[in-house]
Order: sequence, then C-alpha cells, then structure tokens
Amino acid sequence: MRVDMNSDLGESFGAYTLGMDEAVLSHVTSANVACGWHAGDPLIMAKTVALCKAKGVAVGAHPGYPDLMGFGRRKMTVTPAEAKAYMLYQVGALQAFCKEAGVPLQHVKLHGAFYNTACVDPKLATAVLDGIEALGDGIAIMALSGSVMVQLAKERNIPVIQEVFADRGYTAKGTLVPRSEPGAFVKDLQEALARILQMVKEGTVVANTGETIPIVADSICVHGDNPEAVSFTKELREGLEKAGLTVANFIG
Amino acid sequence: MRVDMNSDLGESFGAYTLGMDEAVLSHVTSANVACGWHAGDPLIMAKTVALCKAKGVAVGAHPGYPDLMGFGRRKMTVTPAEAKAYMLYQVGALQAFCKEAGVPLQHVKLHGAFYNTACVDPKLATAVLDGIEALGDGIAIMALSGSVMVQLAKERNIPVIQEVFADRGYTAKGTLVPRSEPGAFVKDLQEALARILQMVKEGTVVANTGETIPIVADSICVHGDNPEAVSFTKELREGLEKAGLTVANFIG
Amino acid sequence: MRVDMNSDLGESFGAYTLGMDEAVLSHVTSANVACGWHAGDPLIMAKTVALCKAKGVAVGAHPGYPDLMGFGRRKMTVTPAEAKAYMLYQVGALQAFCKEAGVPLQHVKLHGAFYNTACVDPKLATAVLDGIEALGDGIAIMALSGSVMVQLAKERNIPVIQEVFADRGYTAKGTLVPRSEPGAFVKDLQEALARILQMVKEGTVVANTGETIPIVADSICVHGDNPEAVSFTKELREGLEKAGLTVANFIG
Amino acid sequence: MRVDMNSDLGESFGAYTLGMDEAVLSHVTSANVACGWHAGDPLIMAKTVALCKAKGVAVGAHPGYPDLMGFGRRKMTVTPAEAKAYMLYQVGALQAFCKEAGVPLQHVKLHGAFYNTACVDPKLATAVLDGIEALGDGIAIMALSGSVMVQLAKERNIPVIQEVFADRGYTAKGTLVPRSEPGAFVKDLQEALARILQMVKEGTVVANTGETIPIVADSICVHGDNPEAVSFTKELREGLEKAGLTVANFIG
Repeated sequence: MRVDMNSDLGESFGAYTLGMDEAVLSHVTSANVACGWHAGDPLIMAKTVALCKAKGVAVGAHPGYPDLMGFGRRKMTVTPAEAKAYMLYQVGALQAFCKEAGVPLQHVKLHGAFYNTACVDPKLATAVLDGIEALGDGIAIMALSGSVMVQLAKERNIPVIQEVFADRGYTAKGTLVPRSEPGAFVKDLQEALARILQMVKEGTVVANTGETIPIVADSICVHGDNPEAVSFTKELREGLEKAGLTVANFIG
Repeated sequence: MRVDMNSDLGESFGAYTLGMDEAVLSHVTSANVACGWHAGDPLIMAKTVALCKAKGVAVGAHPGYPDLMGFGRRKMTVTPAEAKAYMLYQVGALQAFCKEAGVPLQHVKLHGAFYNTACVDPKLATAVLDGIEALGDGIAIMALSGSVMVQLAKERNIPVIQEVFADRGYTAKGTLVPRSEPGAFVKDLQEALARILQMVKEGTVVANTGETIPIVADSICVHGDNPEAVSFTKELREGLEKAGLTVANFIG
Repeated sequence: MRVDMNSDLGESFGAYTLGMDEAVLSHVTSANVACGWHAGDPLIMAKTVALCKAKGVAVGAHPGYPDLMGFGRRKMTVTPAEAKAYMLYQVGALQAFCKEAGVPLQHVKLHGAFYNTACVDPKLATAVLDGIEALGDGIAIMALSGSVMVQLAKERNIPVIQEVFADRGYTAKGTLVPRSEPGAFVKDLQEALARILQMVKEGTVVANTGETIPIVADSICVHGDNPEAVSFTKELREGLEKAGLTVANFIG
Repeated sequence: MRVDMNSDLGESFGAYTLGMDEAVLSHVTSANVACGWHAGDPLIMAKTVALCKAKGVAVGAHPGYPDLMGFGRRKMTVTPAEAKAYMLYQVGALQAFCKEAGVPLQHVKLHGAFYNTACVDPKLATAVLDGIEALGDGIAIMALSGSVMVQLAKERNIPVIQEVFADRGYTAKGTLVPRSEPGAFVKDLQEALARILQMVKEGTVVANTGETIPIVADSICVHGDNPEAVSFTKELREGLEKAGLTVANFIG
C-alpha cells in the first residue's frame, strides 16, 4: 500500500518569491517544477532541481501556457501542434537542469488551464502524449485520475500517474466539484485523511451526491503556498504513514 | 582538407518570418537554431530541426539573451550563474525537439551580445562551459576562432568548433575589424573564397594591417537573410569544393 | 456621401518587419496602430504615428491580448477588469506618441481575438467602453457594424465608427460568414466595390443567403500585408472616389 | 522649509506580490509607480493609482528597461531613440490610469539601471528629457540630486525634483557611495534624520571623506519593501515634521 505526494514548486520568478518551497519539500515525494512560462525562470529551475535532489524528491516538469501575467490559469485556444511544441520546449528546458544535477525526470504534469483543457480534450491530450513518447526515457504523465488523458496514455502504454486531491470534493462522474459549488473543498484534516485512505486502500471515494465511486490514487496533490498549507501537507503525510501507508515516489 | 559551413536559422517568431531558411539549408552543413529568447518559438524550432534533418544539416543550439525586442544584440550585465542557466534552459529546450526528430545536438553557438561577451570574458565563458560539460553527450562549443572561449574549452577537453567569417576582415590580434572601421567587410566573392582557402589550407589570414597571422578555420559562418546572402553562400561552397575542399559537418 | 478606409499598421516588432505600411498609408484615411502587445514596439509606434501624420492619416489605437507569440489571434479568458486595464494601458502608451507627434487619437479598435470577443460579449464590451469613457477627449470606438459593442456605445453616447469589410461576405444576421464556409470572401475588386457602394449609398448589403439586410458603413477595413492587398486597397479607393464618394476620416 | 518623500510602488506582477504598498502609502507624499516593464501590470497600475488618490499621494511614472526577469536592474545598451520611446510608452500607459482616476501625473522617475545610466549619460538624459518635453503638462523629472540629468533639465526649464537618499552615504562628488564600499549605508534612524535635516535646512551633506558639500533635497527616497523599511519611513517622517519641516508633494 503506497502513495506519492506531489506539489507545485519553483514558481518564483526573478525578484518575485512565491511558495514555501524548502518547507514543503520536506514533506512531499514528487515536485512539479515550473518551467519559465507561467512561472519560474532558469535560475529558479536550477535551484529547485538542486533542492529536490538534496531532499530526495522526484522531479517532474510543470509546463504551462505562455501567460506569465495570468500565471497560466487562463484558457487559451492552443492548437494540438502548439500544445505539443510548448510542452516539449518547457520539458526539454527542465531536463537540462536535471542533467546538470544528475537526477532523472520522473514525470510531466501540465499546469493550470493547460492541465484542465488537456484532461478533457482528446486532441490536446494526444498531442501532449505524442510529445512525451518522443522524449522517451520512461517519463510518465501525471494527470487527473480517470481523465481522458489517463485513458489515452494507458492505451499507448505511456506511464501514467493518476493524481487525486486531498482538499477537493468529487462529483459522481469522478470530476472535481467546481470551486463555486458547495462541497468543492475538504478543509478538515481528519476528513481529508480518511478520504485519502479510502482512495488508496479501497480505490473508492464518496462523491458529493453520496455515491461511492471508484478512483485510482497514485499520487496526492498538496500545496505549499502558505504556512497552513505546509502544515496540512505535513500532518497529512504523518497521518498516512501512521495508518500504514508507504509515502514514496516512483523512482525511489 | 575539410571545413564546415554554419548559418543562423529558425529566427522567425509567431507571425513574423525572418531568413530564407529552406534556401540556405541546401548550402550549409551546420545550423545554429534560435531557441526562443532572442528569436524563434517552439513551433519554429520543431519545424527547423525537421528541416535540418531532411537536408542532412547538423543541428546546433543558438541561445541568446532574454531580449526579443533587441534580437539579442544588446549587451546586458548578466552574471556567470545567469549565463549558465540561460544557456542550459535554451539548449535543453532545443534538445527536446532534437529527440523528437531523432537527431543529435552537434554544438552550441551563443548568439549576438551573448556570443560577443562570452568570447572575451573568461568568467562568462567558464560558466557557459560548465553548463555544456554538465549536458555531456559530446556537445561542442562553436566560438570565435582563437577566442578566450576556445582556449578555455580546449583546456577542459570540451569539443570546440572554431569559426571564421567569410565576409569580415581580421585585425592583427585575430579579432574582427569593427563594423565601423575600414576593412570590416569582405564583399567580393572571389576575395572571400581566396581568404577562406588560405585559412583552411594554410591556417593563416592576412590582417587589415598587412600581417599574415595564424587562424584555425573549423567552420565558416555564412548568412541566409536575403537572396544575395544565399547566393554568396551557394557560390562560396561551390568554390570551396571546386578547390578540393570537403565541406562537411562534424557528425556526418 | 462619405466613408473612411482603415487598415492595421505598425505590426512590425524589433528585427521583424510585417506589412507594407508606407505603401498602404497612401491609400487609407485611418490607421489602427499596434500597441506592443500582439505586435508593435515603442520605436515602431513612434515611427508609425509620424508616418500617419506625414500622410494625413488619422491615428487609432489597436490594442490586443498579451500574446505576441500568437499575434493576439487566440482566445483568452480575460475578465472585464483585465480587458479594461489592458485596453487603457495600450491606448495610453500610444497616446504618448500621439502627443509627441502633435496629433489627436481618433479611435480605438480592438485587435484579433480581443475584437471578436468584445464585439459579442456585453460584459467585455462594457468594460472596454468604461475605459474609453474614462479617457475622454472624444475618442471613438471602431467596431463591427451592428455589433453589441456598437449598440452599447450608442446607448452611452460614446462616438462609434461602424466598420465593414470589403473582402468578406455577410450572413443574414449581419455577422461575417466564417472563413471556413463558402461565401466567406469577396476577392473580385469590382464585386467588392459594388458591395461597398451599396453599403454606403443605400445602407444595405446582400447576405450569403440572398436577403438584403441593413448595414451601416462608416469605415471600410482594408489590408496592406502584401502587394496584392495594397493594389486592392488603392483600386478600391479610386473606384469609390470615381463613384462620387468622399473618402475621409473623422478628424479631417 | 518643505520636503517630499517618495517611494517605489506598484511593483507586484500577476500572481506575484512585492512591497507593502498600502502601509508605505500612509507615510510618503509621492509614489513612483511601475509601468509594466520591469514590474507592475495594468491591473496593478490601476489599483496603485487608485490607492495613491485615496491616500492623497502624488503619482509619478517609474519606467524601466524591458527586463522583467532582471527587475530592470541590469545594464542594457539602449540607444537614445530607444530610451525616449521606452520612456514615452510606459509613461503614456500610466497616464491612462491617471485619467481614469482623475489625478494628474506629477513626475517621471526612471527605474534601476535606466535611472543610473540616464543620470550620468548626457545623450540618454537628453533623449528622456526630449520625451518629457513632448508630453508637456508640466510633468517633472525626478532624478539624482546634482546629476547630469538635473543639470540638463534645468537648462531646458523642465521641472526637476532632485532626490536624496536617507539611507545612503555620499562621496565628495555628490554621488552615492557604492554599495560594496564602507559608508554606503546609513542604517541608524537618528543619523538619517539628522542628515536629511541638514540637507533640507542647510543644503549640505557630510561626504564619506569628511567634507561638507552642497546638495539639493527636494524629495527623499524611502522604501516600503518590508516592515522595517515601513517603520523607518514612518519614523523618518514623524521626525522631520517634529523638527518643523512640512512634508508635502509638489501638486498639493
């Protein structure tokens, strides 16, 4: 019984600092490192990869849309060819810092609007998977558990890491409850812990409508933006380990 | 007796087209592909690498300063750490497209102000070479023949490609005659051809002050910005081959 | 009987040249000058405004989305507050060059995806009009004839320039026939001329479904990207003037 | 006896927050608002100008080099034409938000490397002053007390605000002691207060070499990056007012 814990990292830029990277890196097992488009810059990428290495955290690339001003959160109409090329560009850039540090690249997790769109749009997902296949080296795609991206990757035998959210509610279809609706968030640590344990041990989650639905939980997405998020992450991990789970990445 | 011919390519960006890439790729043996900072974008990088593969031209990375508006031609005070990280970022990005196309990356040639500064500043050159060494895979640095960058690379056994200019005059110190001074340019094809042949066959060039000085010519930098430049390149290559030289890159 | 002719201008950027600005400026009466986000840069803005002044062409601002790589043609989910601020920023920037040249700013015409979205989305249109009202000075909004933007501007007594397209077909609803459908384009000069004359003189156009529908033609959008476009523009203007129309902007 | 107190503001960008703007705006009388190139974005500019209005703080434009990644602190070789156009672009953009808020633009203060270079390079300073003159409306240039920029502005009757630094030492030539040298910083509040009082009341300052030299102190540059800086600013102002000075901007 094991599960990975992942967090977005390296989201500072130039003179701007975002996130408590050092703190959260003590509690997660995989990092999604920003690649300079929605956040991050080359100096920060180098520093973040070095930090991951020092902490034994697996490195993943976290490519986003070319929208620093919007932090990659805004939908853009990007063609499949652009999606593939944008992903390759950013992942390649991060791989250079992985080579410098002597660590492998474990996975690619798209960011923000790129993630959301590619999880539901088969054309975009296919283009991204074409790119990951071209990179080779067994790089995995990390994507929303049960999404189109996951299905397509499985069909092509591309390694997949299905991620779940500790702090979010699920619909009966297995999608996240929209942020504007009741049941969107799980803020209580014990409740989150119980939900994650059920996901990992039983492969199910209780939807906001009451049904118990199947879900695959390879990795749990957690946060490190502020002291509360770091504490939540720390305590969630401790709770999972106390309950007998092994918290580990996929390259250990 | 052999020599390489290199040209800057892939300098278009988004809706903007620059250079006659397809035409010049029929005449050169190595390409310096822009990496998205001073010019180029991911779609253009993918297309340019594919074109190089189709034409049998060796791919090199052409990283520049973060200055699209100035086309990377403006001096910026960049620290050694920044220089290394900026180079790694851009070269890594291009390597992803090389992997996609299934071609090796032959070399790195810095662009514009980055090239000029790193050719004379040992700290910047050292930082760039640290990065190239970290990337491994036998990637060469292409730099101004006889420059500090060349010397430092040799000392570290990093592969070096020393480049000369067919259309530029040299000072007695082996540097280029500044563009604002007499003797800066060699516009006549026959004169350029004779100079290159002397460089390759005898390892010397006549400086603007009349002295004959030693020079190493591994590769000749040529241009493809306009029809005249493409013709010059075509005829220069024909002349070199007629004179018995083999024009070839370093991975053939 | 009068009509204005407008064209997008100043779309070069740094080392990149786009459009035959000098040529087309001899034939149009209003210019939509790119403001540095989807195209254009400060040097080009200064030069374009000076050219407009020299040719007696009225200057308009042409703000776009923050997407140089996509030339502002890609949809982005921009909030009303962002739309207003993005418009104000770019228009203000252009106004500085208008002050330098001593010419007024006649109008604002949104670019690409910003134009298309704001023409149909009342919230975005309202935000843009809020910004134009804040700028004062009688600056007009130039927008698709009959669009939501036009209606809202009229309700608020903001000056409006309704534009029509010489080279595009219209649906029975007064919208442009999508580029992918038959009847999208009018390529024949005589046909375009006849259509424009009917629009200006009779206030009607024949839709692609055969109906004659009302349309207001304050200004005709023409192009200057290539020699054919410039010729078309030149001949269209000559035809309009031969037919007795006065071709003039709104500040003459 | 009066003096202005100015601080750099609006330096956040997109998802990134920098500076304690609201806090420091309670203690200064003039704000230098970032214009989107080295820091700031349109939403932040709108918000910052509105805050300045609410607090009765005079708005100035703070244009920088096109170097968000380097926060405008890196030297770039910018031509006089570029300097002028870059300044006009950014100042114009900010003026749009001033119009929206209904406040005048009091001054322009260049940022970082642009400030440093233009204070000593007569060609760059002249180009910037040409631009300010073109904008008209009595906009002042705020520059290093006694610098070339100040002299040139005076010769042309362009309004000048000479600024001094509360927390920096001066050389006998009236320039700032470089940050790497002893005497660069004045960290003690009472010492800083005494120095400022001498500057304002007697028009002199004691240089790091012991001489008393003349200095004009129209405005004092203070900071709001962190709680200590805000406290220093607050206490400096209280001290100045207790000593009988009027702390006020130039448009009150």
